[in-house]
Amino acid sequence: MKTWSGLVCSAVLAATAFAAHAQNPATPGTAAALGDTAARLRERALSGSGAYDILESLTTETGPRPAGSPAFARAKDWAIAKMTSLGFKNVHAEPFTILGWYRGVETAEVTAPFPQPLVITGLGRSVATPPEGIEAEIAIFRTFEELQAAPANSLTGKIAVLTERMGPNDSPTGYGTANRWRRKGPVEAGKRGAVGFLIRSLATKDDRAPHSGALNYDDDAPKIPSAALSGADADQIERIAKRGKPIRVRFTLRPTIVPAATTWNVVGELPGRVTPDEVVLVSGHLDSWGLGTGAIDDGAGVAITLAAAHLAGERHPRRTIRMVMWGAEETDYAGEAYAKAHAAEASKIVIAGESDNGAQHEVGFGVPAGGADLPAVKTLAEVLQPLGVTFNPAPVRQGGDDIGHLVPLGVPQLGMRQENSHYFDIHHSAEDTLDKVDPTEMDKAAAAWAATIWVLAESGVDFRKTAPAAAAK
Amino acid sequence: MKTWSGLVCSAVLAATAFAAHAQNPATPGTAAALGDTAARLRERALSGSGAYDILESLTTETGPRPAGSPAFARAKDWAIAKMTSLGFKNVHAEPFTILGWYRGVETAEVTAPFPQPLVITGLGRSVATPPEGIEAEIAIFRTFEELQAAPANSLTGKIAVLTERMGPNDSPTGYGTANRWRRKGPVEAGKRGAVGFLIRSLATKDDRAPHSGALNYDDDAPKIPSAALSGADADQIERIAKRGKPIRVRFTLRPTIVPAATTWNVVGELPGRVTPDEVVLVSGHLDSWGLGTGAIDDGAGVAITLAAAHLAGERHPRRTIRMVMWGAEETDYAGEAYAKAHAAEASKIVIAGESDNGAQHEVGFGVPAGGADLPAVKTLAEVLQPLGVTFNPAPVRQGGDDIGHLVPLGVPQLGMRQENSHYFDIHHSAEDTLDKVDPTEMDKAAAAWAATIWVLAESGVDFRKTAPAAAAK
Repeated sequence: MKTWSGLVCSAVLAATAFAAHAQNPATPGTAAALGDTAARLRERALSGSGAYDILESLTTETGPRPAGSPAFARAKDWAIAKMTSLGFKNVHAEPFTILGWYRGVETAEVTAPFPQPLVITGLGRSVATPPEGIEAEIAIFRTFEELQAAPANSLTGKIAVLTERMGPNDSPTGYGTANRWRRKGPVEAGKRGAVGFLIRSLATKDDRAPHSGALNYDDDAPKIPSAALSGADADQIERIAKRGKPIRVRFTLRPTIVPAATTWNVVGELPGRVTPDEVVLVSGHLDSWGLGTGAIDDGAGVAITLAAAHLAGERHPRRTIRMVMWGAEETDYAGEAYAKAHAAEASKIVIAGESDNGAQHEVGFGVPAGGADLPAVKTLAEVLQPLGVTFNPAPVRQGGDDIGHLVPLGVPQLGMRQENSHYFDIHHSAEDTLDKVDPTEMDKAAAAWAATIWVLAESGVDFRKTAPAAAAK
Repeated sequence: MKTWSGLVCSAVLAATAFAAHAQNPATPGTAAALGDTAARLRERALSGSGAYDILESLTTETGPRPAGSPAFARAKDWAIAKMTSLGFKNVHAEPFTILGWYRGVETAEVTAPFPQPLVITGLGRSVATPPEGIEAEIAIFRTFEELQAAPANSLTGKIAVLTERMGPNDSPTGYGTANRWRRKGPVEAGKRGAVGFLIRSLATKDDRAPHSGALNYDDDAPKIPSAALSGADADQIERIAKRGKPIRVRFTLRPTIVPAATTWNVVGELPGRVTPDEVVLVSGHLDSWGLGTGAIDDGAGVAITLAAAHLAGERHPRRTIRMVMWGAEETDYAGEAYAKAHAAEASKIVIAGESDNGAQHEVGFGVPAGGADLPAVKTLAEVLQPLGVTFNPAPVRQGGDDIGHLVPLGVPQLGMRQENSHYFDIHHSAEDTLDKVDPTEMDKAAAAWAATIWVLAESGVDFRKTAPAAAAK
């Protein structure tokens, strides 16, 4: 575990750097000067960015923090105190209203032919079962397509169980595809008459810690109680099914549902030296599912971007760095609320970035259409190269779930890509705890973000000019 | 997954072997003949012992099976049916009475200074808390010795939390030592005034699946509710403690305690060809904690020894092979009940063995004092050598938790040793499920047991003669 003591030393360096810039405050530096400072920030972060300490503080002092919960309110207070202590200005929380969903008792069991307990966890936004649970014969579907192909009324009175196994991250059945099974499965089952829906946990590792995640009901389909079954339990169901006898399952979900819960996006700024009205927005999400302490999802994203923004801010770039900690990413509400509240000033946001893919190092970055040939982007690519971060020339249209809501407002998007081969081993499960995080990996990620933030905030780069058509769409 | 179809073929081979022996039924074969058949059994098991299929059947069809529970009663029926189908004779269940302990609701949370949930699981035989749980300030002990050194009354009204980390298997703080912390911790805490006891889960891997296990109360100390805290949660408690504020924890345990529950040792025999009153006893335990399906602890031991006994029995050895599936190993009652019921016939038990260390291959074996130089033991060592199973000349005094109760009756003990470096990653936790088991490893273990059972049941080896002093103690 590192401490913040290293930052005292860097503050001295920062003051020196500021003095150098102050000689010609209104003019962007040369590419060489831009790159030099970015490289120094990279090395500074690698030597101890403080990101792990921020994450340790967040996860220890707030624990799990579902959006709009009392725990989240404490996380909001933590965020305000942390940003204030790091010298951020204009630190504040922006309230908005969500459908609050807080898990309660969650139990499941096979009642026939071989009675035994199962391990489940409710899907976010699932309706509750009656207190005694629901019990029914199950209908097993090995693929989502098979469920979609089931005839109307064919599931009347049954619990639909989808056992399709999510594939590795870059496979056709990786999370990008598989999370549709979870989001839409309850509707597909419900409209065919099912009384409940269980899905094999979306994960790249099998254990008995099931992975939650949000579902999306439709108004034209019955809302049925829905949960994730651990991989080991889904295997067990399949084995029992091989015996050829009807299988009955009972499960209970007793979430507390709050139709209008208040949550907050928490914001802080490091005002720009020259053009404070031009904003580089970086972010992670403060909310988590209620199972683990949200260490990799997404305490890490908050901590990496906050540490990086802090380090870059110590060099006093021309533009304002705005840190946003989203208050309801998991239930999809935060970016929408922010976009609504900030529509009038969206044109001031030069670019927005979001870190929400774990605590490992970065492996790639991209910029909006037309940006590949900009000198600042080329400089950045050179600075990130020693970290193993490769420039991806494919234009970035959407850089994250929350900042994606700023796309219709014309806000250019930064695309950072992290090593995430084990991310889906634990995300959304009780296993998402601090012990899974390597401080050195966080420093590498923070190094990439610090250099990137510096280049975006110090150069005059303007992606709206390079690709006005894309930016305006 | 393998099937039993290979056994049809082996039955033909067995009949041939039987015919060969039948020519001279009353005389033990030569060392060469003994070794040849043992080697054939070894190879037969390696090509598919059936052990995995037995385990798949047990874990799928019974699930978790705490001693004396309805699930255990189903496991008992399964055991009778399985042994009967494999041709065992005299298949029966021997009832005995135990203190039944069945976990119910188990919850825990930090209530101050940073409210958040914790993951715990009750220790076997723990008394219940009131329905609303108990809440108190905690006192943290980093080592068991530190707890033992705490002054009288120093824990009055507190929950004692022992965070000592269990070491690797062969270290001074491995399970052999650490399980004392769990067994005696509740008494050490209770007699100093504590109202509850939490122990860092005894495990070689940290995750959020806490490991249960039995505790031992003393009549002269208060019986306080006691549970295991997952490794990740124990780490979290330590991190919170670093903030220097008093920590309060609430936990709830609502086990069902049945003062006189009936459970069963399930027994079957393959009668000896020549001296059926001489018995080679092999065993595993049928009961499990209620969290996982008891795949490695100890469905695997049942399956490995049953498959091996079946294969050895197909060659019709001189002595009787007796399979015992213990009905309450986890709560320590099974061997005692068996010894009490079978004291009069203990002299007929030539040797007893027990497999209760997982589903991996065997790495060593030992025999009682004075047995090292017996020709049969040397033959066995040669046969097991290709499996990587090494003879350990240290005399075996006690070969397993259940068969250990036969030591005072003079029953010689077989000592088989398994590769178990990851056994304590999952044992006694919800992670003890079939997916952790490699069928090939089970075949290797069954190969060692099949050859061993054959040599012990076909030769005239008598460890009581080689070491009468040891046998009589």
